[in-house]
Amino acid sequence: MTTSNLHRQPAPPLYERIKGTLREGILSGHYAPASLLPSEAALGEQFHASRITVRQALADLQNEGLIFRRHGKGTFVSQPKAFQNVTALQGFAEAMSAQGHAIRNRVLTLRTVPAPTDVAQALQLAPGTAVVELHRVRLLDQSPVSLEVTWLPEALGSVVARADLVTRDVFLVLEQDAGVALGHATLAIDAALADHATATALDTGAGAALLRVERLTHDAQGAPIDFERLYFRGDAFQYRLRLDRQVAAHAQSILPLQGTV
Amino acid sequence: MTTSNLHRQPAPPLYERIKGTLREGILSGHYAPASLLPSEAALGEQFHASRITVRQALADLQNEGLIFRRHGKGTFVSQPKAFQNVTALQGFAEAMSAQGHAIRNRVLTLRTVPAPTDVAQALQLAPGTAVVELHRVRLLDQSPVSLEVTWLPEALGSVVARADLVTRDVFLVLEQDAGVALGHATLAIDAALADHATATALDTGAGAALLRVERLTHDAQGAPIDFERLYFRGDAFQYRLRLDRQVAAHAQSILPLQGTV
Repeated sequence: MTTSNLHRQPAPPLYERIKGTLREGILSGHYAPASLLPSEAALGEQFHASRITVRQALADLQNEGLIFRRHGKGTFVSQPKAFQNVTALQGFAEAMSAQGHAIRNRVLTLRTVPAPTDVAQALQLAPGTAVVELHRVRLLDQSPVSLEVTWLPEALGSVVARADLVTRDVFLVLEQDAGVALGHATLAIDAALADHATATALDTGAGAALLRVERLTHDAQGAPIDFERLYFRGDAFQYRLRLDRQVAAHAQSILPLQGTV
Repeated sequence: MTTSNLHRQPAPPLYERIKGTLREGILSGHYAPASLLPSEAALGEQFHASRITVRQALADLQNEGLIFRRHGKGTFVSQPKAFQNVTALQGFAEAMSAQGHAIRNRVLTLRTVPAPTDVAQALQLAPGTAVVELHRVRLLDQSPVSLEVTWLPEALGSVVARADLVTRDVFLVLEQDAGVALGHATLAIDAALADHATATALDTGAGAALLRVERLTHDAQGAPIDFERLYFRGDAFQYRLRLDRQVAAHAQSILPLQGTV
């Protein structure tokens, strides 16, 4: 190529080459999901690299979520991630069981609390109004994938509190038990590190990467009724969606969230 | 409330109460964005807590992105995050400049490489086919917000390589300079930790939380032409979108991505 901008760059450092080779091996299927990678010593020999250089390459692959380590057992290739197609507003069980996954929930907390500032603002309540707060770990095929923290106005929350929260989505309880017609939700999506409590709930290390979703669900009349913070394990889950370059004329604008996430 | 499930729980541990009080203070605006929080010693006195307990609360708030620390200067309240409304397929500059932000790009790498397995698969090329690889840091109001790694087939890549990559989105170069009609893109969104190179590019610490987006853009005929990995600073950026409970009949299904993220 003859463009002035474009040129071949010098060879990357050794740890980048080790990383690239292992990454290729994983993506091509040469190293299968859940299989054991060669030991650090074996990789050092293969690449004529020091233990420190090998560790740097493995640390990067672990940060990317391609591999994980088990103390005393070695380094393994990660399983393919579970994913949720984001087209309509769906609960986790609804979306994932359609793909054949088994969903169970571990209820950690169910209590009445005075609404914190951000929750009160989202639900359009006076600060300190009683709300029901629910913490659940969602288990996908028996492994923890997300922590859901939900706040509901007390009247709806008391209906949800009587439901089977081990198997059912809150959305379905709201529709079927409380007779609410759900409308739309606004979502804010970002990333954060797991704090101690979240790491414990999700059976991951503190400081692990989390996909964080703040979701405010409205009823069909547009009143906010359900405010949630969802924390997904970054190494176990992804959202997928499709966007078109040309927006259809019917597409609706996004209402700004309060921006507290 | 009299439901059997619902009950008041014992008081949370002290560090949770410190965290909750500071969080309230930040969200209510009592502590303004960019302002200095009280010192660890002052917080310890205020809450009758040890330095270790105060640090645990601050570490959690930092993981959440609500505060940040400057060595030797103290702990500060984070600025509100920049956000991108996700309705149509848009480049970063296109989306963010509409909100009045100034966008510049730092070009780190522009080179021709043999397509790695996952890139070749996404672009439907034979493995090893030459592709153009572009690494850019996107600066929002002069602060680094994302690292974009882009792979293009060589013919399109050579057009992009001749363009002004400091100010222009690749999407606009493809449309305006290469005459491509863009169609749709599939996105996979998850979270990961920053490796050393990404942390350096984004001026954050290694191990910081990243919102990671894998985006495969197709032309109007449905052929894949642009494969990207976008790494957004978790503490500086969020995606926002709106979902409806009832999917309109025109909504299109999402094509599965290859699932390598």
